[in-house]
Amino acid sequence: MINIAITAGGTSENMDGVRKITNISTGQLGWHCLEAILDNMLQSDTEDFHVHYLLTETAARKTLNENQQKFVSFIEVTDAESVFKAVDKLTKETKIDFFIHSMAVSDFTFSYAANIYRLAEEIEALQCERGFTNDDVRFLLENPQTQHRKDEKISSDNELIIGLKPTKKVIPLIKQNNPATFLVGFKLLRNATEEKLMAAAEKLTAQNGCDMVFANEVSLIGEKNHEGILIKGNKIIDRPRGKKQIAKSIVNNMLCH
Amino acid sequence: MINIAITAGGTSENMDGVRKITNISTGQLGWHCLEAILDNMLQSDTEDFHVHYLLTETAARKTLNENQQKFVSFIEVTDAESVFKAVDKLTKETKIDFFIHSMAVSDFTFSYAANIYRLAEEIEALQCERGFTNDDVRFLLENPQTQHRKDEKISSDNELIIGLKPTKKVIPLIKQNNPATFLVGFKLLRNATEEKLMAAAEKLTAQNGCDMVFANEVSLIGEKNHEGILIKGNKIIDRPRGKKQIAKSIVNNMLCH
Repeated sequence: MINIAITAGGTSENMDGVRKITNISTGQLGWHCLEAILDNMLQSDTEDFHVHYLLTETAARKTLNENQQKFVSFIEVTDAESVFKAVDKLTKETKIDFFIHSMAVSDFTFSYAANIYRLAEEIEALQCERGFTNDDVRFLLENPQTQHRKDEKISSDNELIIGLKPTKKVIPLIKQNNPATFLVGFKLLRNATEEKLMAAAEKLTAQNGCDMVFANEVSLIGEKNHEGILIKGNKIIDRPRGKKQIAKSIVNNMLCH
Repeated sequence: MINIAITAGGTSENMDGVRKITNISTGQLGWHCLEAILDNMLQSDTEDFHVHYLLTETAARKTLNENQQKFVSFIEVTDAESVFKAVDKLTKETKIDFFIHSMAVSDFTFSYAANIYRLAEEIEALQCERGFTNDDVRFLLENPQTQHRKDEKISSDNELIIGLKPTKKVIPLIKQNNPATFLVGFKLLRNATEEKLMAAAEKLTAQNGCDMVFANEVSLIGEKNHEGILIKGNKIIDRPRGKKQIAKSIVNNMLCH
């Protein structure tokens, strides 16, 4: 049995039950990868496979026909924390052969919101004592007294300061839990040259053991004109264009590696 | 000619070209209001009307049949600033008779992101001079030296501080530009009693000249079990349940007021 995992869409970090921090990911590329896998497998009469599809609530999701449905199970996630838990569980319970990690998982999550006037007062009060250090300010900025209550919608008549804290990285889990998994990572940069994209892909590979990376630049994404480079062994092996073509290239290069 | 405006969906405030601050609004209630208006008008053979439908990119949008299409024009918006401009233009150019403002427009927008260590250093340096005031800190927190460049994706290996600033309120524009418009406002609170909802609706009415307000609580929203109170002249005139029923109640009470 070949087990394949795909993650797709952008996570949402809850701020106050109404507002949230999210990102531009639509989940379209992940869905195209699923379709490319189904096409590839069913055309070659391979039936001994299963796709574990992790997706966020805003991720693209189309209808699968009855035959396709039996090869796919969906796992719904919301924020970075829920993705971490779901990926950890999946990769511990199932020997995943191929993992396409296209989800845009937030690097940080909401910590607090504070009124800028009250926060300024709180910081100003530090000097009443005998002077203070960088660490004193950082400590205060990490967890001020004056934050909005967690169970209330943030009122926002004044300027606000929002504290964010890093989330646990999901991608290192995959090879930690199963070093034999073939891992496809994704890198999205803004205002970056191809050289910078290559460097970022190399770093992602070195840190997380990616076997292949698709790297792209924000201004070049979109359904039809999506462009990017597919990198394997620190070399560009393809320059596919359009989300469908990108998905095909990723899936073909992955399955026939 | 009866001119009706509807705003629907949640706005997105761009942070760095990839990340954004948005909210849980789906735009479903706005769409149900559009359908209720079309049903109401076309069933009574009224053809002398037009709906101006302002929506965000993530707002629900279904297919209209050919007959319905000619009564509706769509205006696409993104962030709070774009809604302000679109509503100002529309209400200056067209005498709007009924305005259903169901869009969740962000009260604040992104100002900057800063690494918490660097921001702490910058604040600490204030004490090198001859002491500082609340205002000095607030001024620094409004516009620190150490912010991430606007044209780069925010790197987030450390904790981050995000500065937010208030957006220009959209709702007061509507009656300012045309005092004769019948204005339906919306209020969404969290962990609020009916008393608090009533008080918030009264405030919304007093500040912006709403003729009717639909007030609801976060835990009671959803397609089927959406609940809330419809308030006119500071009295509850209906307690509709389910988004379709809420839309019908709003539209019927609005058109027959």
